[in-house]
Amino acid sequence: MSNEQLDKLRAELDQVNLDLLSLINRRGQLVQQIGEVKEKHGMNRFDPVRERDMLNKILEEHNGPFEYSTIEHLFKEIFKMALELQEDDHRKALLV
Amino acid sequence: MSNEQLDKLRAELDQVNLDLLSLINRRGQLVQQIGEVKEKHGMNRFDPVRERDMLNKILEEHNGPFEYSTIEHLFKEIFKMALELQEDDHRKALLV
Repeated sequence: MSNEQLDKLRAELDQVNLDLLSLINRRGQLVQQIGEVKEKHGMNRFDPVRERDMLNKILEEHNGPFEYSTIEHLFKEIFKMALELQEDDHRKALLV
Repeated sequence: MSNEQLDKLRAELDQVNLDLLSLINRRGQLVQQIGEVKEKHGMNRFDPVRERDMLNKILEEHNGPFEYSTIEHLFKEIFKMALELQEDDHRKALLV
């Protein structure tokens, strides 16, 4: 009985993990596209004001169970990943 | 024209951020529920084998644009957050 309950919760957790993975990668693609548009128009890729604005929108919607500081820390990591991805693309472009 | 394109991409990015937030918090709730079931049955909350298994399932499905090592690092952060959440719950329970 309890193992069934545990298995069910774990199956849902595995599905949430894969949904997160899919969204993270979708986010990466979007950031790459935004980087390309910015590059075409000679705009700076990193925009701290836009980053703060994104973070505020996220924190406004947050309602637990995690602490606000934990969510903020995680999203800063996610933003950093996207920036590194753009820098990789830029380096690759320079090598061509 | 290009600003319209940028605005559209940014609106989609904001939506992806909120979907991520929602999944992260859903994940937190599931981990809390799993912790409760485990506690009831005197099982250890932290299970490194299960964590490795979750990570393998995620990496099997991953297909970019991020590096595998970046995805692994991010999910280890997410797992750690969940563990800290359980520890907080446990501490709160001890205080009651």
